[in-house]
Amino acid sequence: MTRTVYLNGEYLPEAEAKVSIFDRGFVMADGVYEVTSVLQGKLLDFPGHLKRLTRSLSELGMGNPLSDDEWLAIHRKLLELNDVRDGMIYLQVTRGNPGDRDFAFPPEGTPQTVVLFTQAKPGLADNPVAKTGMRVISVPDLRWARRDIKTVQLLYPSLAKMEAKKQGADDAWLVEDGFVTEGTSNNTYIVKDGKIITRDLSTDILHGITRGSLLRYAAEAQMQIEERPFTIEEAKQADEAFFTSASAFVLPVVEVDGAKVGTGTPGPVATRLRELYLEESLKSAI
Amino acid sequence: MTRTVYLNGEYLPEAEAKVSIFDRGFVMADGVYEVTSVLQGKLLDFPGHLKRLTRSLSELGMGNPLSDDEWLAIHRKLLELNDVRDGMIYLQVTRGNPGDRDFAFPPEGTPQTVVLFTQAKPGLADNPVAKTGMRVISVPDLRWARRDIKTVQLLYPSLAKMEAKKQGADDAWLVEDGFVTEGTSNNTYIVKDGKIITRDLSTDILHGITRGSLLRYAAEAQMQIEERPFTIEEAKQADEAFFTSASAFVLPVVEVDGAKVGTGTPGPVATRLRELYLEESLKSAI
Repeated sequence: MTRTVYLNGEYLPEAEAKVSIFDRGFVMADGVYEVTSVLQGKLLDFPGHLKRLTRSLSELGMGNPLSDDEWLAIHRKLLELNDVRDGMIYLQVTRGNPGDRDFAFPPEGTPQTVVLFTQAKPGLADNPVAKTGMRVISVPDLRWARRDIKTVQLLYPSLAKMEAKKQGADDAWLVEDGFVTEGTSNNTYIVKDGKIITRDLSTDILHGITRGSLLRYAAEAQMQIEERPFTIEEAKQADEAFFTSASAFVLPVVEVDGAKVGTGTPGPVATRLRELYLEESLKSAI
Repeated sequence: MTRTVYLNGEYLPEAEAKVSIFDRGFVMADGVYEVTSVLQGKLLDFPGHLKRLTRSLSELGMGNPLSDDEWLAIHRKLLELNDVRDGMIYLQVTRGNPGDRDFAFPPEGTPQTVVLFTQAKPGLADNPVAKTGMRVISVPDLRWARRDIKTVQLLYPSLAKMEAKKQGADDAWLVEDGFVTEGTSNNTYIVKDGKIITRDLSTDILHGITRGSLLRYAAEAQMQIEERPFTIEEAKQADEAFFTSASAFVLPVVEVDGAKVGTGTPGPVATRLRELYLEESLKSAI
């Protein structure tokens, strides 16, 4: 079955979904995106993703081209058309196609480009890595300074993931001024003496939707949370480490730059938080 | 007349030139570009642009999909098909379309995407701004750290240009750690006591092809050159200021953050360097 995707109001076979070479997403990385996870045919943390989308657009001087109801209808229709029960839905909005390349924004009223597609991942919640854990390396954080805006400028995260692979690891944690900012496409955490430590929100990191929900669930479960930057050295000395993202939920990290974290196996806090997130986010899934 | 553009081996009407929504240039800004100026139907500094293209690709782990002769043939054919005498040719190479979105690089052998198009600018060398000068503002340099690679991650330069417009200026100079790195899409210079001062090459700035040629011509003309970072305050106190880029050649800057530079009119050094660049680069144009 060929995948059906959404492009500017139309539902198309994926091979026919094309944008102009003048689209500002293509020539200028002038676009933002969101990824929403789907479990049992339902969207996780959907209002959070829409809210962040609107904020990302607004920070770049763009409006949101669709209403919340319209976004939801497209997401649901794509799930139905592609018969997706577990997986992700990716959405991207760019400043559109002005018909030529220019650094200046196109005239008011130039239609934005709206793209959505599904990625089916049967068994997404049963990722075997949750039982074995991830190994990460640290690399310098060379990204632009506004990581709170979820733009498609993903070249450096992609390069950092490839560097991790090259070094035999699974992913990379980014370090700036001596402190971990976040992972290549996830928020990062350590656990020390029962306390969950994760970097505080700022323009230095993406304001993870999964991060926000997880911290809320953890607080409700009376777990201790400290929001502050931490170093790679602290991560190596921690009892546990883990990361969160919309598509990975919560995944334990068992090795940092070749050093075992804690026992070198997924710890009880990360394991509990993964269960907690899946349980609670499914309750509010729509 | 509709413009004819080049896309992956085909010459197409511009409206038909489209890339997949899965192209890594669109979803991940995983691409590089070059802009070559055209005067009197000839390409300026062409070998320099091709050399930098190969370097940009190589820094991102990509090969150059075409030979120098093939690039030249496409450039010439586009000029002919579009009857362009003065203007620019834009080229972009991305890591191609892997058929789905993934941070990991696509398998070896995935065809890269190659796009070229012309932008006709009759009278490009007779820009009236050369006689009046540009007004610039300073903004923090929030770009990623590898500005020596000419990637399509141009969102921040675009935002900075719009901020300049909003403030009634023509362009923005980017400042990091107290020093000017470069302009939004150009290299920057000041002149003090007859000496041309411009930031030395590093990963902090683009290694401008026009910059390289101009400095060579200036040295041959026995002009004094100092390659080192300078501050906005120094620029305000300078005798002259100017910038270089492939499409603007050399343009004087007469105002920085509201302060007149020198007399507030284009100075003799910038004016002489513009003449020198146009004269010399046309001699070697092909």
